Parts: sequence; structure tokens; C-alpha cells
Amino acid sequence: MLTLTTARPEARDLAVEDVEVRGHIIDSLTLPKVLDAICALGGAFRIKEIAIGQRRNDPSHALVEVSADDEAALAKILAQIADYGAMPTAAQDCRLEPVDITGAFPEGFYSTTNQRTEVRVAGRWLPVADQEMDCGIVVQPGRPSARCVPMNEARLGLQFVVGHAGVRVFPVERSRGTETFEFMGSAVSTEKPKGAAIRQIARALAEHRTRGGKRVVVAGPAVVHTGSGEFLCQLIRSGYVDLLLAGNALATHDIEQALLGTSLGVYLDRGSPAEAGHAHHLRAINRIRRAGGIAQAVRSGVLCSGIMYECVRHGVDFLLAGSIRDDGPLPEVVTDVLVAQDLMRQKLRGATFCLMLATTLHSIAVGNLLPAWVEVVSVDINPSTAVKLSDRGSFQTVALVTDVAPFLRALVEELAVVDSG
Amino acid sequence: MLTLTTARPEARDLAVEDVEVRGHIIDSLTLPKVLDAICALGGAFRIKEIAIGQRRNDPSHALVEVSADDEAALAKILAQIADYGAMPTAAQDCRLEPVDITGAFPEGFYSTTNQRTEVRVAGRWLPVADQEMDCGIVVQPGRPSARCVPMNEARLGLQFVVGHAGVRVFPVERSRGTETFEFMGSAVSTEKPKGAAIRQIARALAEHRTRGGKRVVVAGPAVVHTGSGEFLCQLIRSGYVDLLLAGNALATHDIEQALLGTSLGVYLDRGSPAEAGHAHHLRAINRIRRAGGIAQAVRSGVLCSGIMYECVRHGVDFLLAGSIRDDGPLPEVVTDVLVAQDLMRQKLRGATFCLMLATTLHSIAVGNLLPAWVEVVSVDINPSTAVKLSDRGSFQTVALVTDVAPFLRALVEELAVVDSG
Amino acid sequence: MLTLTTARPEARDLAVEDVEVRGHIIDSLTLPKVLDAICALGGAFRIKEIAIGQRRNDPSHALVEVSADDEAALAKILAQIADYGAMPTAAQDCRLEPVDITGAFPEGFYSTTNQRTEVRVAGRWLPVADQEMDCGIVVQPGRPSARCVPMNEARLGLQFVVGHAGVRVFPVERSRGTETFEFMGSAVSTEKPKGAAIRQIARALAEHRTRGGKRVVVAGPAVVHTGSGEFLCQLIRSGYVDLLLAGNALATHDIEQALLGTSLGVYLDRGSPAEAGHAHHLRAINRIRRAGGIAQAVRSGVLCSGIMYECVRHGVDFLLAGSIRDDGPLPEVVTDVLVAQDLMRQKLRGATFCLMLATTLHSIAVGNLLPAWVEVVSVDINPSTAVKLSDRGSFQTVALVTDVAPFLRALVEELAVVDSG
Amino acid sequence: MLTLTTARPEARDLAVEDVEVRGHIIDSLTLPKVLDAICALGGAFRIKEIAIGQRRNDPSHALVEVSADDEAALAKILAQIADYGAMPTAAQDCRLEPVDITGAFPEGFYSTTNQRTEVRVAGRWLPVADQEMDCGIVVQPGRPSARCVPMNEARLGLQFVVGHAGVRVFPVERSRGTETFEFMGSAVSTEKPKGAAIRQIARALAEHRTRGGKRVVVAGPAVVHTGSGEFLCQLIRSGYVDLLLAGNALATHDIEQALLGTSLGVYLDRGSPAEAGHAHHLRAINRIRRAGGIAQAVRSGVLCSGIMYECVRHGVDFLLAGSIRDDGPLPEVVTDVLVAQDLMRQKLRGATFCLMLATTLHSIAVGNLLPAWVEVVSVDINPSTAVKLSDRGSFQTVALVTDVAPFLRALVEELAVVDSG
Repeated sequence: MLTLTTARPEARDLAVEDVEVRGHIIDSLTLPKVLDAICALGGAFRIKEIAIGQRRNDPSHALVEVSADDEAALAKILAQIADYGAMPTAAQDCRLEPVDITGAFPEGFYSTTNQRTEVRVAGRWLPVADQEMDCGIVVQPGRPSARCVPMNEARLGLQFVVGHAGVRVFPVERSRGTETFEFMGSAVSTEKPKGAAIRQIARALAEHRTRGGKRVVVAGPAVVHTGSGEFLCQLIRSGYVDLLLAGNALATHDIEQALLGTSLGVYLDRGSPAEAGHAHHLRAINRIRRAGGIAQAVRSGVLCSGIMYECVRHGVDFLLAGSIRDDGPLPEVVTDVLVAQDLMRQKLRGATFCLMLATTLHSIAVGNLLPAWVEVVSVDINPSTAVKLSDRGSFQTVALVTDVAPFLRALVEELAVVDSG
Repeated sequence: MLTLTTARPEARDLAVEDVEVRGHIIDSLTLPKVLDAICALGGAFRIKEIAIGQRRNDPSHALVEVSADDEAALAKILAQIADYGAMPTAAQDCRLEPVDITGAFPEGFYSTTNQRTEVRVAGRWLPVADQEMDCGIVVQPGRPSARCVPMNEARLGLQFVVGHAGVRVFPVERSRGTETFEFMGSAVSTEKPKGAAIRQIARALAEHRTRGGKRVVVAGPAVVHTGSGEFLCQLIRSGYVDLLLAGNALATHDIEQALLGTSLGVYLDRGSPAEAGHAHHLRAINRIRRAGGIAQAVRSGVLCSGIMYECVRHGVDFLLAGSIRDDGPLPEVVTDVLVAQDLMRQKLRGATFCLMLATTLHSIAVGNLLPAWVEVVSVDINPSTAVKLSDRGSFQTVALVTDVAPFLRALVEELAVVDSG
Repeated sequence: MLTLTTARPEARDLAVEDVEVRGHIIDSLTLPKVLDAICALGGAFRIKEIAIGQRRNDPSHALVEVSADDEAALAKILAQIADYGAMPTAAQDCRLEPVDITGAFPEGFYSTTNQRTEVRVAGRWLPVADQEMDCGIVVQPGRPSARCVPMNEARLGLQFVVGHAGVRVFPVERSRGTETFEFMGSAVSTEKPKGAAIRQIARALAEHRTRGGKRVVVAGPAVVHTGSGEFLCQLIRSGYVDLLLAGNALATHDIEQALLGTSLGVYLDRGSPAEAGHAHHLRAINRIRRAGGIAQAVRSGVLCSGIMYECVRHGVDFLLAGSIRDDGPLPEVVTDVLVAQDLMRQKLRGATFCLMLATTLHSIAVGNLLPAWVEVVSVDINPSTAVKLSDRGSFQTVALVTDVAPFLRALVEELAVVDSG
Repeated sequence: MLTLTTARPEARDLAVEDVEVRGHIIDSLTLPKVLDAICALGGAFRIKEIAIGQRRNDPSHALVEVSADDEAALAKILAQIADYGAMPTAAQDCRLEPVDITGAFPEGFYSTTNQRTEVRVAGRWLPVADQEMDCGIVVQPGRPSARCVPMNEARLGLQFVVGHAGVRVFPVERSRGTETFEFMGSAVSTEKPKGAAIRQIARALAEHRTRGGKRVVVAGPAVVHTGSGEFLCQLIRSGYVDLLLAGNALATHDIEQALLGTSLGVYLDRGSPAEAGHAHHLRAINRIRRAGGIAQAVRSGVLCSGIMYECVRHGVDFLLAGSIRDDGPLPEVVTDVLVAQDLMRQKLRGATFCLMLATTLHSIAVGNLLPAWVEVVSVDINPSTAVKLSDRGSFQTVALVTDVAPFLRALVEELAVVDSG
């Protein structure tokens, strides 16, 4: 066990404190989290000592010097990393303040986690009883004891811990060797702000266009079903799409809407799923097969609008890959999956950005073919698409669990801002 | 069994045809579907005879006269209702056309269902072999036989049925007495166009405001988490909300965002779930408790923005009902659920329109209290909320399975159109 | 408007009552529900008069004679159909009973719906105020008025309606012409009892085997991932499977488990998704390709267990259909989707029962090919598979939203009971 | 930058190799993954040098000595950690083998990732072109070049890389500063083996019982709806439950089934959701309110079976916490949520194991109150419950995304094995 020295910027008049981290600090990710939090909050670190356990269950420890521009910034960092169990080595007693308003904590109260916690009172570390998250800690100084108390039980006379000084937390470590038990590492959440993400996606897409990167869209038929085909048309017309990868269904329903006009009318009248029991999509396919193909249908004036029309008109390359559930299919559909894979592979050469819209099969197929450095954004209202994509190795994917229609609408609006800006 | 006469408009020069429907025509919904399709396509009907089976398994039959403005309209109706098994009594042979382009059907081809089907050839009904949906029917007139053939197997020389004449379909009836077996009657789909729906909701909301109807919003914390709090603020400022029903979480996270300002900043920096392990929401609650309540915090200048602020400023009535997962709670929260229910009951008197946003608990609770004639719109990205609401008796609910943030954004935009229109 | 007579069984000493149904009784399904409820509860009906509106919005009415074995049975039927708005023509006053225990209703209380309701007091129909589901109705006889009161507000002295006599309900009708608004007709629920359903599926499967029906299993790779491959092997060994339809993934992961043995070990150690970043499945495919195919690998002793092994050993026909996301693929995989479709079509001839396990793509593809009279059971933990299958015309499908592993486990156990019984 | 020495076991005759890891080795988790993989595969490590970058974007590096029992074990470890970018410092050329069977790789082929890769040929590192996961690497030694080739394009004459020697991988690092962009860190999957997990849960539950730990069950009404109430009764009778936390709905539906007997019969007959439009649950509540409470109803013989009955009979403590959607409620329900929280807090003191069954509200509420060292297992078919629980700080939760009925059935069976073992 020895001392590790790292280079650090010239010493200014910084606020500095040494903290110690103990436990499985590398493989339980404690140390990465601590270092990350220090940087995220504008501080710097120097690892003064590090000792890593030899076996899985051997504890490790690290001594880290934390520095920040001033004491306030340092205090904020220390408060944050204290939750991960990083404690200042120069221990102080915890600071107490009395309740001044019944049913409320003093400002600056220490807010508990559900981890084992101790507070330092008169030089001694006391265990905190009744551990519970989102409480304050009451200390009875006379008969030294500490316990968690919820906000609504704060009453005049009680003394609560304020600040992080004199509080230490012992994180529960992930139990090794029981990992079949741990089915879920972390979270897929629908409760996230998406506006900022869509803005970033718009900027990324515009930047890839500016830089001449190759931009690919992979799309499922729900783009048409949800009425967002027109947004995709706008992306194509604005030159945001270099390559469209899809299947027979997307093209068929797009053409059905273009040719038979009334498809929305039919939906409105019947209020029943478009696919069930009717022949419109088959008539659309038949008409294209009679015309000899999509491009021919565009040239001969049979097909005058829609996603496939825009691709043909604007010279956007597309590939329709077959699947065993296809009706027809449209003449352009490549029915041999190995041939289709190989064509996808060739067309994807040089891709730099890939937007996957509401399709599991095509998203996973394309994800399998892309190198990890291609930026991939996947949009699907069903979280399972994102989960499967990630589970199958396309870990670089940024997944939005949201509805494809408003996503495309917002994307088009954000791109208009970018274009005019 | 006798003749049923209904009044009908004066006879113009209409196209008319008698059709017969057989089977469990009422309880398998065949007759309602037939009558509905006739009306939906602009036709009219007269039930000339109806005989309803006495017991569940007794078949019924009806003779229905269908009329339409012209033969083309009539043909369209007959084609549609043929899929439900309604057959013209004046039977004709089916009409055949040869394949003229390999791999395509003749235009006007009959498109099959997966139901048992017969075609009439030379006065005899032939069963159709290899029944499969989305095919054509090939008839070999010499050795009379008929079978389903998919589009890609259409080759020159084959004769396909065109039109619906001479084709009859025998719908499979729902098997009674095995209904534990039938877990799913119909469908919750995310693959629907939502733009039109949001426009209608905007119009309905505006109309209720114009008519002086009472408009209620029920909202969960995901409204804040997804960054759509500002849209709800706009609805409040524009006078679209008379009553807000929510819980401690919505108000807490709204106030957290208003008071601590950096909450979005924190999310951006940390990229981790907002709720986990941090104290911001608790500090927000504590500050409001110290101020004596939300209204006091607005008056004293502590709280200057957000949903709750707008409610106070614009005199919008609100009720925060407690739940066992609440931290704090905020002083306004009614912690006894019977008292809260009773207050909700009183405040909901006279409600005419209710918009439920991303909350299961509060939506079901409010749904329980509303009479069936109040218009209810429920928006949630998780289909299970809509399913539960419907399963618990609030059958009048119109449910959109979509993301709450783009929904509110689109709603605000549509309302701006309505307001300026 | 005239009288409709239907045949009915000889008159025994039955309890009989005439009820009237009004409104859109056919197309809002009121009449079917009433007739269905009468039968379901052991009664019989005779439609004495029926008048059906000419246009969508014209009301209809029917006069139905309800009969049951005794007065108790009749009362039960009348209570049930009253909720659908069917009211006895011989009107009585409602019956009242006083509260005898504070906070509880009298036994036999009338339980409200959320529909508009009236009660008959002293020969006059009074509207019920404060309409709310799951309440009782309090009548103040002196100043005749009626209102809904929740259970916890029942106090001594109040008079509550008991029974259904003298109560009438006016169902809200589905508003026609606004159906884009109505996204969800009914429900997909995970909150259903499945034990009985699995028992019925086991019996159906056994019966199809006894009768010599052709039994098809369609399976996705989650069958292997969830550890339920062995249950499918048992079904095959017990002769329950005539045909297996799957893709490259099911066969690959099955063979990976069989060949590399340690795959579960790997899962346990790593606790990470099996597919991500590792080569096992590719080595498994490679070994089979080197052997010349699955059958050859079985014959040469390379492959000694698993689903594919059991198929080869027991002569169970199988088809592996290709998709664009396939690695390898295994030599048996049919890579042209039209060829695969055609082979599926041929192999499915004569199918009578089809069990679809945890696959969307293959389930929809097979559903497209099956006639409506084939019994189809679909099992998937993701409700969207069932929704899509139903939306695409395979309406006969019985869908269980449940986990495939315990489903197969329970199915095997139920079949063991059937086999030994 | 200096050398770090850790203690290690006495030197046996081990296979040893030095590897180097570069990049953001701590905060991109590369080093933890490498160390973990070494241990997982039975090896040992010694960190000979480590240098950690000062700022977020400064690269770090580590020199790690890997040892294993023999060369075969070492090779396996090196192969595994090579995927994380850990490369032996003693570089060798890659090893090539020719294709011997068309369409297959040589045994022992190197299986690619989607990360940037280089191979060493004649002492020079060559970039690999056409990077794609799940391929082999072809090297053309004459004009030195390397590229990814999928299995089905392997043809005689091509030379493929075998083994991991001479291959190095450059992992893409998580891009810092764009984390709003990264909505999903990892995965919730339904495609996992659950049998082993249920066995472990059974053992854990039994062990907690043996050790005298306090075992808590939190349950939602779906336990009753899905027909698994009897399994929970068995757990209670077998002494596995010390405390039941639930709401009004679980108890109400349990009692409805117990009192009205026919509820399953009703479900079977009607095939409609149990809650919609009927009065059974209200009659059940009313009867218990008339009896004075659940315990009184048991004593007086009114309530003779079900979950609540078993609790009363076996002296199992329970708490029913109220919510705003409650009907009735049952007399035992604590309607003030702060009082309920406080009672839960008291009753949960000393809890060591908590099983949460099919409830979001109660699971999160209980999760909020438990310290992190209590073992928590959450079972719900809807992944969102697990996600929310984890998002709200109860990170120690082991979540099974599965159907509660077969879960409980399997748990009871596994416990029977444990009890008899």
C-alpha cells in the first residue's frame, strides 16, 4: 500500500479538505461516483493514497484531497459526496440547531438517506436509530443518542443536525455472488423531461448535416399510423435524411394513405384499427405492383405524395427489407434477409447518425450492423424496444420512451429554429 | 316470426337490395355492425323480418332492406357488410377476371378475410379452400373449385374473383360459455393518430369554457418531471382550469422547481433520477411549512412561479389529497382520505369536463366520484392507467396513451388557435 | 312498430315480468347485454315488441318478457338488467329501509352506478341528486327528494333504497360521430385469474391431441432466455407438438445452452444480459454450420439436448424463418421470406390449435396465415403483442398477458394431471 | 505517478500476464469491470501502476498483473477483459487460420464487438475496417489489411483471426456533459430466467424465518384478482408472514371472495372485469362494517376464509392504510395518512425481509420507510413499478417483472421443498 501522486494545477487560494473512502470503492462504484461528483460540482481532486483489495470481498480505501474555489463550493461538494460515504478525515462534531417552528426543520437541516449513518457528538460517533430516508436527525445531547425524525414530528425543543459536518454514511454494498437475484440494475423511466433532449437531437442532426455526415432514418409503420408521416416528409424535403431503412409495412401504409386518400376518413368513420379486416393496404400494394414499382409509380403519376414519394423525388436512398409478415410485398422489398442485410451493410457505410423510429425489428437489425461510434437515437413509446436494443449490444443508443408523433412534430419545429438561427 | 316495419323517408329513386343476416346476430353483434356500417356509408335500412333465437345458442336471422343513393354507393355498402356475413338474397354468380400482370391481382379483386367463405359458380356455392386473410380467390371453372392465393403467386392464366357479388362469408361466432378463456375483448393501441384527438380535446375544453362549464384538471407529478409544468401554468393563466386536484408530490416538485431554480440544472449535470437520494424536495416542503403554507408563501414573495403559484394568483381552487407515500407533507395537504374524498365530492359538484394527466391514483379516485355524463379525458403513457380506469367503471373516459409533455404542448398550441380563431 | 313472436318452451309455473328497453338498444349494445344477462342468469326471454330507429340517432325500443324459475331468480335478473336501463313496465314505488347501524347501509341496499338515475316515490319519479357510483340512495319522503350518499355517511334516521324495484337508470349512450376521440373501446388487463385459463388451455391441447388435430407451437427466444426451454422439451416428448415455427434466435439460444453448457453459469457470474457483447451464440451457430445442420449435429452426437434436439429425435416438423436481425444463420433457416411464408402456409394446412409463445413477429406472421376457426392462444408478458395480434385481424386469439416461464410450467403440470386422469 | 503494491497470496506456479488499461478507466467503469471479470473467472490481480486523470476528460491508465491457475484459465480471462480494452503489454501478432468449411469460421475464431478494433500483423497494428459486432476478422497478409466479415460470407481461402492475442479494442467512452441526452443507462428486461430467482427468494425467506428475522408482506388487490389469494394464505399459515401491509382494496376483494362465494363464478359467467358496475365489493364492506370489523366478523363466524381471516386466526399483525380511492372503507382502515405512516413506521421496526406484491403505492410508501439493509423483493408484471421504486431511492430492491399469481405459486412450492428438506 503506497502513496499515489497525480499532477494538479498550480495551487491557487483554494479551499481544500482530505476525505477518505472505504469499502469496495472501485467495484461498487463508490470511488467513480465520488470523483465524478467532485468534477460535476466544479471541484478538483488528487488521490493521495489508494489501496485496492486483492479479492472481491476485500475492502479497499482511498484518501482523496478535494479542492474547490471557495469554502461554499467545497461545502457543497462535501455534502454531496458524504452520501457516498466519503468523509473528511479531520472529523468535527455535528452541528445542532433547535426547532423554531413546529412541524418544520431548521433551515439547512441534514436530510437523511436510508443508509446506515453515524453522527459525531462530543468526539464520539453515535449510531443513528430508526434509519429512514427523507428525515432529519434529532440528537439528544444529554443522554447522547441520535435518531431519524420525519418533518411532521419536529416539535419545539428538539435539536436537529444541520449541515454535513460530523455525519458519516456507510453505503450498503452491492452483494456479490447473488446477481441472479438482482434483475434490475437501474431504470427505464417515462418520467423525464424530453424537451431538452429533442432540442439536442435536433442540434446533433443539423450538425451532422453541416459536417456532411451520413444521416440514416429507420422507421416502422407506426410513423404512418400515428399520423406523423408528414413530419418525416418534411425531414426528407429539408435534406435531413440520406438513407431510409424500413420494411414493407411502412411503405405500404404510406402509399395506402397517398393513393386511397380516404384512409383517415375511414378511421374517423369506423373508429376501428386500420389493419383489421379491410383491403385498402392490399389494393395499394397491388396498384404499385401493377405499376412496376414505387419509382415507376411516381414517374407515371400514380403516386404523388407521402414518404416514399418524397424519397424518390429527392433522390433519398431507401431499402425495404422483407419480413415473414409481409403482404404483397411491394416490388422494391428485398425478400432474402441475407441479401437485405448485406445491402443494409453497404448502405450504412459511412453513417454517422441514425434515428430509429417506432420499430423493434429494424432497429435491432440496424443496431447490429453499426459500429459503436455512430450516434444512435431510438424513439419508441414501448420501453421494451429500448431495453432490447440495449440488451443486444447497441449500448451507445440514446433511447427516448415517448410517442413518435409528437416527437417528430417537436423535432421538425426545433430544426426550423436551427435552420433559421 | 313476423315482419317488422319501421318508418322510412319517402322513396326516391334509390338503389335497393335485400340482404339476409344469420347466426347469433344480436349477441355476437353481427346485426349492430351491419346496421352501423350501412349508416356509416350513407345508406339507410329497413328491417323487414327479424327472428331472435330464444336461447343463447339458438340462431337468429334478419332480412334487411338496404338502400343507397345510387348503385355505386350500394355496392360499397354491400361489399362492407358482406364481411360480416350479410348476403344479398338475390344471389348471383361471382365475377371472374384473368390475371393480366404476373404477381398482381386484377383491379377490383375480392380481398379475403380469414373467415369461412363460399363463392357461387354456375349457380352452385363452392367452398373456398386454403382460407387465409389478405389473399385473392382463384376459381377454376372447368373442374369447379376455388382457393385463396396470395398476391405474389398470381400468374397469367389464373382467374380471380372481383367484386363482392357471389361471395358469402360465415363469421365464426364468439364461443359462449368459455369466457374465462377470452381475456381480451379488444385493444389498447399506441398506434393511433393523436393530432386529431388533441384538436378535438382543445375544442371541447374551449367550448366548456364558453358555456360556463366547470373544468377540472387532475395531475400527477410526472407533469413536472417531464418539464411540462409551464404548459399547465399557461392553461391556468388562460382561464381553462377551474379546479386542480392533485397530491403532495405534484405540488412539491412544482415548488421545488420554483424555489431551488437549479433542479433542472441538477438533472442535467447528474443525469440521474431526480428523486433518488437528494434533499431538494424536502427543503422545498420545509420552506413552505416554515412560511405557513403555499398561499402565505406566494403572498410573502417566497414562491414566485409554477403551477401552485398560478393557482393562488388566479384564484383557481385546488385540493391536495394526501397519500401514505407523502414526505412532509405541504401544509395544504388533506391527510385524512375520507375528509379529502368529501372535499373532492363537494368541489366536483357541477363539473362538466375533467382532464386527467399522468396519475393513476388520483384519476381513479376522481373517476369514482364523477357521474357518467361528465366528459373525461385521461392522458398517460402507461396503458395500464387507462385500462384500470375503464375496468373500475369510468367507462366514459376517453384515454390517450401518449406522453404528457408533448400532449400538453400540443393542447396549448391548439387552444391558441381556438382562442385566436 | 309491431309485435314480434318467437317460439318458446312450454309454459311452466314461471315467474314472469315485462321489461322495456329504450335508446340505441341495438347499436349501443344495450339489447344484446340485456338478453345475454337474462340467459347468463338462467332466465328466458321473449321479445314482444321491437322497433328499431331508422337512422343512427333515432331511438329504438323493445318490450321483453323475462321469465325465470322462481321469484328469487327473477329478482336477480331484474336487478342485473336494471343497470343496463331495462325497467319493469309495471312500475312500483321504491322500497326504503332505515339505517340501523351508523356508518353502514341496511342489508339489501341498492348500490348506485354513475349513470343518471330516478327513484319512484308515491307514484312519482324523482331524479337522484349527487350521482356517484358505489353509494346508496337516501330518500327524504316528506319533502320528496333523493340523493347518493356514501357508506361512511350513513347515519341513524336516514332512509335508504333497498332492492331494484322503483329504481330506473338511463345509460349514457356512446356518442356517435366522435369516434376518433374514443381511442379505447375496452381493456387489456393483467389483473385477471389465469389458473383457470391455463387449465382450459391444457384440456383444449389434450383434446386436440386425442382428436388427432394438428397442434402448432410458435416460439420466440424468450422461451430459452427465461429458462423455460425444458418445459417446451417436455411438451415435445409428450407428443403435444406437431409443428414448431420459430426463427433463428430461438434455435440459436437453445443450441447455445445445449452446447456450451455454461451459459447459465455465465449469466449467474456476470449478471448481465446474455446477448450483449459475447460470442457464445455465434460459436453455437458456427459449430452447427460446421456440422452441416441441426439434424446432422444430432446424428453425429454434437447436439444432445434442448428443443431442437427433441424435435429431431421425435420427428417433430419445424420451420426456422429468417429475419434481418439474424446472426449466422443456422443452416436450416429459410432466408427468403416469401419462400418461408409459403412453407409456413403448407405446413399449417390442417392446423387446429396454435400456441404462440413470446414472439410478436412470428405470432403475427402465423396469425395472418391461419383461418379464423383455428384455436389460437397467445402468451406474452408485453400486452402490446396481444393488442397488435388482435388489431391485425387474428381476432379469434385468446391472449394471456403473463410470463411465459410460469405459464409453460403450469401448462406442463396441468397436462400431467390430464394425462394421468 | 507511481507504483501501487497490494498484498497478494504466496506465489504458486501461476500463469501470469501484465495487461494495460487506458482511458477513463475509473469513471467509465472500465477498471471495475476488468477487475471484476478477473475475479469472476477465478483469477487474481495486482495493480502495479495506476495514474488517474485530474479532470473529467483526462485519461488515466493502469498496469495490472493478472494471474490464474493455468494457461487455459488465463487465456479465458484475457479474452474476456480484452473486450473492455485491457491489452497484454507483451504484444504478439494475431493468429490466423484459414476457412476450412464454406460459410463457417474456423473454431476458436475471434468474435467482434462494435468497438474500434486493431489487430497486430507482422509487428504493426492495423485498424479493422467495416467494424460490426458478431463477425470474424479477415486479414489479408500480403497487402496488410483487416476487416469484419459475417459468418455467411466466410469462403475458402480467407484467413480469420483466432484467439485474442494480437487484437486490441478501444472502448467508446461514455460522453460526459451530454447526460440529459442519455435517458436510459441500462435495462429492465422481461427476458430473464426467474426460476432460480424464486428459489433464492424462497431460501432467503426461510432463512429469515429460521433466524427470527421479521418478514413483511406488502400486497395489492391484484393478488386476489389473479386468483393467488390462497397462496398468500398458505404463506401465512406456514408462519412466513409476520406483518401484512395493504390497503382497503386487498382486504375488500379478499373478503368479497370469502363472503359471496360466487365471485369466481360471477367472473366465469360474465367474463367482465370484476370491479365494473357491480355491488359485490360494497356488500362485502357493508357486512363487515355491520359486524363491527374484520376481527369481530371472524369471531362471530361471518368471515371464515381468506387472507384477512388467516391473519386474524394466526395472530399475524396487519395494517390497512387508506387512500382517496377507497370505498367504504373497512373499519380497520386507517384513514389519516400521517397516522398510517406512523403506524407503518412502528410496525416495520426490526423488519429484515420485505416482499412487495403487485402494488405501486404501498410498495413505494413502505420502501420510503425501510433502511437500506432490509432485503426487499418486489414483484409486479408492470415494469414501471420496479422503475419507480428504484427511482425513489429504494435501490436495494430486487425486482422481478413477472406475474404475481405464478410467482406466488412457485414460491409456495419452493418453500415446501425447503420445509421438507
